Amino acid sequence: MVHITRRERFSAAHKLAHPNWSNEKNHDTFGKCANPNWHGHNYNLWVTVKGEPEPLTGFVVDLSALGDVIKDKVIQHVDHKNLNLDVPFTKHLMTSTENLAIAIWNELENSVIKLGAELHCVKISETENNYVEYFG
Amino acid sequence: MVHITRRERFSAAHKLAHPNWSNEKNHDTFGKCANPNWHGHNYNLWVTVKGEPEPLTGFVVDLSALGDVIKDKVIQHVDHKNLNLDVPFTKHLMTSTENLAIAIWNELENSVIKLGAELHCVKISETENNYVEYFG
Amino acid sequence: MVHITRRERFSAAHKLAHPNWSNEKNHDTFGKCANPNWHGHNYNLWVTVKGEPEPLTGFVVDLSALGDVIKDKVIQHVDHKNLNLDVPFTKHLMTSTENLAIAIWNELENSVIKLGAELHCVKISETENNYVEYFG
Amino acid sequence: MVHITRRERFSAAHKLAHPNWSNEKNHDTFGKCANPNWHGHNYNLWVTVKGEPEPLTGFVVDLSALGDVIKDKVIQHVDHKNLNLDVPFTKHLMTSTENLAIAIWNELENSVIKLGAELHCVKISETENNYVEYFG
Amino acid sequence: MVHITRRERFSAAHKLAHPNWSNEKNHDTFGKCANPNWHGHNYNLWVTVKGEPEPLTGFVVDLSALGDVIKDKVIQHVDHKNLNLDVPFTKHLMTSTENLAIAIWNELENSVIKLGAELHCVKISETENNYVEYFG
Amino acid sequence: MVHITRRERFSAAHKLAHPNWSNEKNHDTFGKCANPNWHGHNYNLWVTVKGEPEPLTGFVVDLSALGDVIKDKVIQHVDHKNLNLDVPFTKHLMTSTENLAIAIWNELENSVIKLGAELHCVKISETENNYVEYFG
Repeated sequence: MVHITRRERFSAAHKLAHPNWSNEKNHDTFGKCANPNWHGHNYNLWVTVKGEPEPLTGFVVDLSALGDVIKDKVIQHVDHKNLNLDVPFTKHLMTSTENLAIAIWNELENSVIKLGAELHCVKISETENNYVEYFG
Repeated sequence: MVHITRRERFSAAHKLAHPNWSNEKNHDTFGKCANPNWHGHNYNLWVTVKGEPEPLTGFVVDLSALGDVIKDKVIQHVDHKNLNLDVPFTKHLMTSTENLAIAIWNELENSVIKLGAELHCVKISETENNYVEYFG
Repeated sequence: MVHITRRERFSAAHKLAHPNWSNEKNHDTFGKCANPNWHGHNYNLWVTVKGEPEPLTGFVVDLSALGDVIKDKVIQHVDHKNLNLDVPFTKHLMTSTENLAIAIWNELENSVIKLGAELHCVKISETENNYVEYFG
Repeated sequence: MVHITRRERFSAAHKLAHPNWSNEKNHDTFGKCANPNWHGHNYNLWVTVKGEPEPLTGFVVDLSALGDVIKDKVIQHVDHKNLNLDVPFTKHLMTSTENLAIAIWNELENSVIKLGAELHCVKISETENNYVEYFG
Repeated sequence: MVHITRRERFSAAHKLAHPNWSNEKNHDTFGKCANPNWHGHNYNLWVTVKGEPEPLTGFVVDLSALGDVIKDKVIQHVDHKNLNLDVPFTKHLMTSTENLAIAIWNELENSVIKLGAELHCVKISETENNYVEYFG
Repeated sequence: MVHITRRERFSAAHKLAHPNWSNEKNHDTFGKCANPNWHGHNYNLWVTVKGEPEPLTGFVVDLSALGDVIKDKVIQHVDHKNLNLDVPFTKHLMTSTENLAIAIWNELENSVIKLGAELHCVKISETENNYVEYFG
């Protein structure tokens, strides 16, 4: 069993705020992340899949096919978008990094199986000082 | 003469779009950066000042004083903010990285002189694949 | 279950040498790390905690609260200090990266529980070419 | 039990192509990696071993001894070499990153035991956007 | 006047060896870079252009147009290629990083003028420990 | 004229404090950098030289010869040392990064000329958030 990871990147706007809470309560809970006019990040996304290398190619999975799946299922929907307003699979959520990782796992899981591998981890960094990992 | 550089970081939302242009024209000109609901970045800001080291301290400038100036004049205004809506010195601009660098230079120039040094360069990266430098 | 990691940094002096060994024996065992007048590093510290995202916030743990705990329990005691002379929880130890990771785990474990999460990993890098991970 | 990791680097040429397939079939399967005249990479190699810190030194393993093993068993054979033509332990393989990780594991496993530790993971990155991990 | 820089990357094979020198003389002069069966690198290429921001867009140059020029003139010719055998503008050269930078400058200079800017610097890194800059 | 840069690294202890000032005055002036028991850093050192590529080799300077000079003149004296106590060319100085850059320039200037090139810049970073450049 070998793990292989591909990184993709996206830049998006978001905020952390409950629509039915006051600005004060949102600011007390989420700090500067609650700014009503949004803020944004360059997100790094690492998708790790696992399996046995196919004897003829030496590949657990064709990395460019994995890249295409990540772009098709995730990146085109989130890159240069607003995670709270534009993205079908996140706009109903608190767009914490934790919830992003779970939502992206759900978008990818079946497509990775179709590539002949198993999804192992979705890792997202929001800044250089924090990241989240979800293992399903 | 020695150059010394301090890096600070901020996360902000913005878009590139003329308010009096159609969505189509904005998209043709600015691509995905024109998304009406904003997007965002983790910006890195490097501020380079120059001067002669003061003999008793060996400092061109006290780096924590320089850091305080950058935070006071720039970071507190832009971090977790919308560059087009929230920031006094950028909200009237196309918020291209080029224009950000010039606007930040203007915010910092006099304060750096008060620290006893000279502003040499404002460098900003928007993603890991591009950056802008302004030398005044 | 989601894992979330916060990075903090500190700069410290240390050496690797037994007080009751000769300089020769220390140098034979620890190489240049035994230099009697100390050396130092910029350490990176990654603290990983795990738990389930709280439904209202989407947070496993409030990252700024986690950051405060790390600063309060660890960073203020080690940053710009001598690990062999100044730090209550390391000065009785061989200050190998392995022992640092274990000592920092012990400082953090209970405080992370009070935040409602579980400590998963303490990772420390001493240079860009090596790092240690401790899982309790 | 503590995990400790050392990074080494090497630069090598390789290609992905079956000697008994046509250029067309190789290109269809391996894309630009099948270029007949080779291409190359700066590979990063992280070797993680695990064990209990030795009480007198605080070391799971002497990192410079581990470095020497990695250089002796792996780096001197692959650095500035052609993985398909020059390297005894990879020249009979499809030199995918997956197969490299397994082959390097096999070169290192016994030598790490002689150092008094256990090999935990061989991780290799081929570019900044992908890496492979093998756990034996 | 503002400087703006775009990074592109490519992976290539090469060697440093005179075709009419002995292996011994090539090895004495170029060390392990003379390995007859090639080696390779992940090259980073930074292209810096300068000009005044256009008032309506705030752009010195449209970065995606600059990216297209770099890909068209340089990257498609060198990525996953052998610099000594496959690349029209380098195959007659000693493929030192110095010569690569000059050759890439010559490929780009006129196309950057057509974009309405001026080429300022071509910077290339061969490994994380060295890079070359050419200013024309 | 081409510029070529080589990075070397060293880990050292130091403090910023005047021997004839009180602890209070040193702390007021230098903050936590004045800790009497030292602290330390992983320093990165970039040495840039310039010249014309030699036609037969394509080299401005043989990078491994330049590396040997940097190791001989600088790294062996500062790595795993105390800059205030152990290093002939810095122990009489306030060991600010500014003064380090100037002192290292002076150690290297003549040796670079003997390699047939000209020293252009000595750049040192003390942490990931600051660096100094000296151009002679």
